[in-house]
Amino acid sequence: MTQSARIRGVLAPVLTPFRADLSPAKERFVAHCQWLLSQKCGLAVFGTTSEANSLAMEERSMLLDELVEAEVDMSRAIVGTGCCSITETVELTSQAVKHGCAGVLMLPPFYYKGVSEEGLFRYFSEVVQRVGNTRLRIYLYHIPPVAMVGITEKLVERLLKSYPTAIAGMKDSSGDWNNTRIFLDAFATSGFDVFVGSESFLLANMRNGGAGTISATANVNPAVIHKLYAEWKNADADEQQAKLNVIRDAFGKKYPMISALKRGIAIYANDPAWAKVRPPLVELTPEQATTLAAELKAISFTMPGLKWSVQKAGRR
Amino acid sequence: MTQSARIRGVLAPVLTPFRADLSPAKERFVAHCQWLLSQKCGLAVFGTTSEANSLAMEERSMLLDELVEAEVDMSRAIVGTGCCSITETVELTSQAVKHGCAGVLMLPPFYYKGVSEEGLFRYFSEVVQRVGNTRLRIYLYHIPPVAMVGITEKLVERLLKSYPTAIAGMKDSSGDWNNTRIFLDAFATSGFDVFVGSESFLLANMRNGGAGTISATANVNPAVIHKLYAEWKNADADEQQAKLNVIRDAFGKKYPMISALKRGIAIYANDPAWAKVRPPLVELTPEQATTLAAELKAISFTMPGLKWSVQKAGRR
Repeated sequence: MTQSARIRGVLAPVLTPFRADLSPAKERFVAHCQWLLSQKCGLAVFGTTSEANSLAMEERSMLLDELVEAEVDMSRAIVGTGCCSITETVELTSQAVKHGCAGVLMLPPFYYKGVSEEGLFRYFSEVVQRVGNTRLRIYLYHIPPVAMVGITEKLVERLLKSYPTAIAGMKDSSGDWNNTRIFLDAFATSGFDVFVGSESFLLANMRNGGAGTISATANVNPAVIHKLYAEWKNADADEQQAKLNVIRDAFGKKYPMISALKRGIAIYANDPAWAKVRPPLVELTPEQATTLAAELKAISFTMPGLKWSVQKAGRR
Repeated sequence: MTQSARIRGVLAPVLTPFRADLSPAKERFVAHCQWLLSQKCGLAVFGTTSEANSLAMEERSMLLDELVEAEVDMSRAIVGTGCCSITETVELTSQAVKHGCAGVLMLPPFYYKGVSEEGLFRYFSEVVQRVGNTRLRIYLYHIPPVAMVGITEKLVERLLKSYPTAIAGMKDSSGDWNNTRIFLDAFATSGFDVFVGSESFLLANMRNGGAGTISATANVNPAVIHKLYAEWKNADADEQQAKLNVIRDAFGKKYPMISALKRGIAIYANDPAWAKVRPPLVELTPEQATTLAAELKAISFTMPGLKWSVQKAGRR
C-alpha cells in the first residue's frame, strides 16, 4: 500500500454532543461530522476530546453505525477503538474496518501502570491477529498525560517489524516536540505516519516529514488549520502558525479544553445544548462561558457554515 | 441499615482465570470462589487483581451470572463495577444489586486525569440515582497508584451527606496508612466501612475501627488472614501479622503480584493453565516460576483444600 492511499492532513477528534439525559445526541454528532468534512477536515471519532472513554462500547458502536447510515465518507475517518480490554478493542476495530474507515486510533490498555513493553506488544499483536483483516491500519495513540501508559520507540520498532502493513502511524499527544522528533527521525521515511496531537506543532511536523495533525481545536477551527497544512511550504507559514496558536490558546489556555470547545460550538451555533459534557468532566461555569464568548469575539473568531449543519440536524 | 448487616472481614479480589485463548475460564472461576468461601473469605470479584479492566463489560456480566447460576452465596460478595463510562457502571451495578450482592466496589472514572471533585461527585451521583435501588451499597475504590484518580475526604463527605445509605465504605489501596487513618478518623464512627487494600495493614485497621481487608493475597492465603481478622484482640495478633507479611512478600516483593498469585495457584493446584494472564500483563518466566515455587516451599506455604475445588471444577 502506498503512502498516498493513507489518510493525511488535519483530523478533528470529533466532539461527542450529549442530550440533557447524557445520552449521545446522534443528530448533532452526524451534523458536526458533516460540517467538519465540508471544511476539508478529516474525522477522528472517539478520541480523548470525544469523551470516548466516557462512552460505553455499545454507544461507540451505535454512533459508528449512525455515521455509516448517514453516508458520511468513512474513508475520511479514523476511529478510536483502544479500550482496556482486548475483547472490546477487537470488536470495535473489526467494526471500523468493516465500515471502510481509513484506520483506527488505538490507545494502549491504560488501566495498569508500569506495564512492560512485552505486555504491550502482546496486546497489540493479539488485536492485529484477531481482527485478521489486511485492510487494518492502526495509528498508535501516545497521550501520556492522560493514558499514563505510552508508546515507546522500541515498541513501534517491534510492531512495525511484525506487522508492517497494519501499523500505519501514530498520534503523538505528548506535547513534547522532542518526542515527536524521535519518532519522525526513526520511522517517517519508512512510511510510518506521525500526526501531532496539537496544531501548534503542525508546521514543525510537516517540515520534518510528518503526516498532519489530529487536534482538539480542529473541531472549531478546521479550515484555517487545514490551510496551513496545505500551504506549509509557503512564505507566510510561520505567520499562519502563529495565528493558529492564538485561537488554540483562546480555548485551551484558561479553560478545560473539551468543555470550552463544546461551549464554543454552543455559542456559534446558537445551540446551548451543545455545551453538555459527561461526568467526570464539567461544563464551563456561566461566568467562564461569558468570558470565553467575549474573548472569541475580540479575536474575530468565526465558524463559517456552522449554522447550516445544525439546522440540518434539526430537520432529521 | 445497621452495620452488622454489612459485609465485613477478609475479601479476596478474586483472580480471573483464563483459557489458552484468553477467554475467561468460567469453571475455574466458580471453583475458586467456592474454595475462597470455604476458607471464610468473602469475594470481591472484578477488582484490580481480577484483571477486571482487561475484561469487556459483557464478560464481567457473564461471569456474574455464572456465579449466581452456580449458587455462590452473593451476600458474601461485592462486585467491581466502576468503569470509565457512567452507562456501563450503571448497567453492571444494577445487575449486581439485582443479584443480591453485598455491595459494589466502585472505581472512579479513571481515564481523564486531574478531574475536579465536582466532576467526580456528579459521576457517583448519577450512578446512585440511575441505579435507583435502596439496596445499593457502594464501596469507593481508592487506588491512586493504578487509577491515578483518587477518592478524597471531601468527596466522601459530600457523597455521604447526599447518599447516606448508598455510600457504605471504601477500599483504600493507597498503601499509605496515614491516608487510611484520615478516613477512619473522619467517617468510621458514622458507619462508613474502611477496608485496607493489603493485609499488611489489617491489624492497624482493626485497631482503629476498620472493617477488614480486600487484599490480593487473600486469593492464596485466605484462612490465615481471616484468623487475624477474627483474633485481632488476641495477645499474639502482632505475631500473626508478622507471619502474614512474610507470605505476602513472597508473592509480591520480587514478582508482579497478579502473575505471581496465578502461578501460585497453578503450582498448588497442579494446574498450569491457571497461570495465564491477559495482556498487557505477562506471566512469570519459567525461571521466576521455579524460584517462586522454591521460595514458597521454604516458608512452608500451603493452600489447604485447593485440590478439591479444582477437581470439582473438572467435573462440571
